[in-house]
Amino acid sequence: MTDPFEELNYSLQQFATERDWDQFHSPKNLAMALTVEAAELQECFQWKTETESAELNEKELSAVRDEIADVQLYLIRLAGKLNIDIEKACRDKMVKNAEKYPAHKVKGSSRKYTHYQKGDDK
Amino acid sequence: MTDPFEELNYSLQQFATERDWDQFHSPKNLAMALTVEAAELQECFQWKTETESAELNEKELSAVRDEIADVQLYLIRLAGKLNIDIEKACRDKMVKNAEKYPAHKVKGSSRKYTHYQKGDDK
Amino acid sequence: MTDPFEELNYSLQQFATERDWDQFHSPKNLAMALTVEAAELQECFQWKTETESAELNEKELSAVRDEIADVQLYLIRLAGKLNIDIEKACRDKMVKNAEKYPAHKVKGSSRKYTHYQKGDDK
Amino acid sequence: MTDPFEELNYSLQQFATERDWDQFHSPKNLAMALTVEAAELQECFQWKTETESAELNEKELSAVRDEIADVQLYLIRLAGKLNIDIEKACRDKMVKNAEKYPAHKVKGSSRKYTHYQKGDDK
Repeated sequence: MTDPFEELNYSLQQFATERDWDQFHSPKNLAMALTVEAAELQECFQWKTETESAELNEKELSAVRDEIADVQLYLIRLAGKLNIDIEKACRDKMVKNAEKYPAHKVKGSSRKYTHYQKGDDK
Repeated sequence: MTDPFEELNYSLQQFATERDWDQFHSPKNLAMALTVEAAELQECFQWKTETESAELNEKELSAVRDEIADVQLYLIRLAGKLNIDIEKACRDKMVKNAEKYPAHKVKGSSRKYTHYQKGDDK
Repeated sequence: MTDPFEELNYSLQQFATERDWDQFHSPKNLAMALTVEAAELQECFQWKTETESAELNEKELSAVRDEIADVQLYLIRLAGKLNIDIEKACRDKMVKNAEKYPAHKVKGSSRKYTHYQKGDDK
Repeated sequence: MTDPFEELNYSLQQFATERDWDQFHSPKNLAMALTVEAAELQECFQWKTETESAELNEKELSAVRDEIADVQLYLIRLAGKLNIDIEKACRDKMVKNAEKYPAHKVKGSSRKYTHYQKGDDK
């Protein structure tokens, strides 16, 4: 195997099996854990300005790196439980996004960005 | 390029550049957007039982697939902005997790799971 | 003053002024902090079954109580910054909800609940 | 009754009973719903600068007001299910916070703020 999503998913399965944790890993619980990790990642930036958020020191960057991994691992685990191919889902979603936000219509406008973004999310 | 993370990151950069959206994509804002997408993913399972959450119909599965893609895309974009290698971060985190939750100590125990999990997250 | 929302808002203002923290309390940052606290609250229930989530021990209940307070305090602070009357906003929202989910139409149905809920949220 | 928390909790109980929705309102599910609403509130500020987040137009403010109500209503409902007195929990937490962040030590420092904040949250 050379696909990182597949490899990581396999490692996570092994990890859970060895600990008998599969019983806790319903899609519902995994989705909850994912949101909690996303919030912990967000917390790293919470009181920083946008500019500061791009200028992390070594220690902060290391913490962010760990939180990014936590989000990624739960996402792979959740997708694995539902037999969803993340990479393919991403490519399909990017096609949808390109149709929804035509470059010539939304270019550089925060208002339109927000507007179109809302249209997408809701 | 054959690495899916790199390829998707490159596509996302192009997508943002074409729309002049890079100005909105501070790490702080991307982390916020990621959490919002994670919550939308969680919302798909919110009123379901754990058992039901593993038995989605076609339409529900398709919605979940799109939300998983949204989370993944913002995660790649955020990691890209901070020059973080997601795959390597995941592997390093799995080594840490294996040390923190030794299989013979935490096996099958929800109490220990919770306990050790808390120790990890906090 | 006898209104708890007003009193707590006043105390929070004093607290921030004494520490010169007002500079960090933009609505954007307060909304981020609120979500992080909500996720910490959710984390208390994450690996429990629904039944277990209603049977917390003393220590768990005390932790949940603190997290509920954190969410409430940031919510009051955010509403205060935007001059929003939380109590009145709640009453108005309950009127909207009663119109949106007529009791005789949605009674006891999880499918309809989900359906109507989605209609509300989106 | 004149306490807004009690009154709103009573109204929410009635609302759920009339729709037979109590079966969905485990503390776990309510905590999930609360986080989703918090994320929707956060979404209102997501692509705005901090300054812009304090200068909402009528329509934006109305949307924020509804989301604040949603968060508040789920918080009251969750606290009600666990017999937690929100107002008292808030007062107790503010005493803890005052001890944890002594004004003379943390005044005006974002670094210390972050540091102490982290100490509090974790």
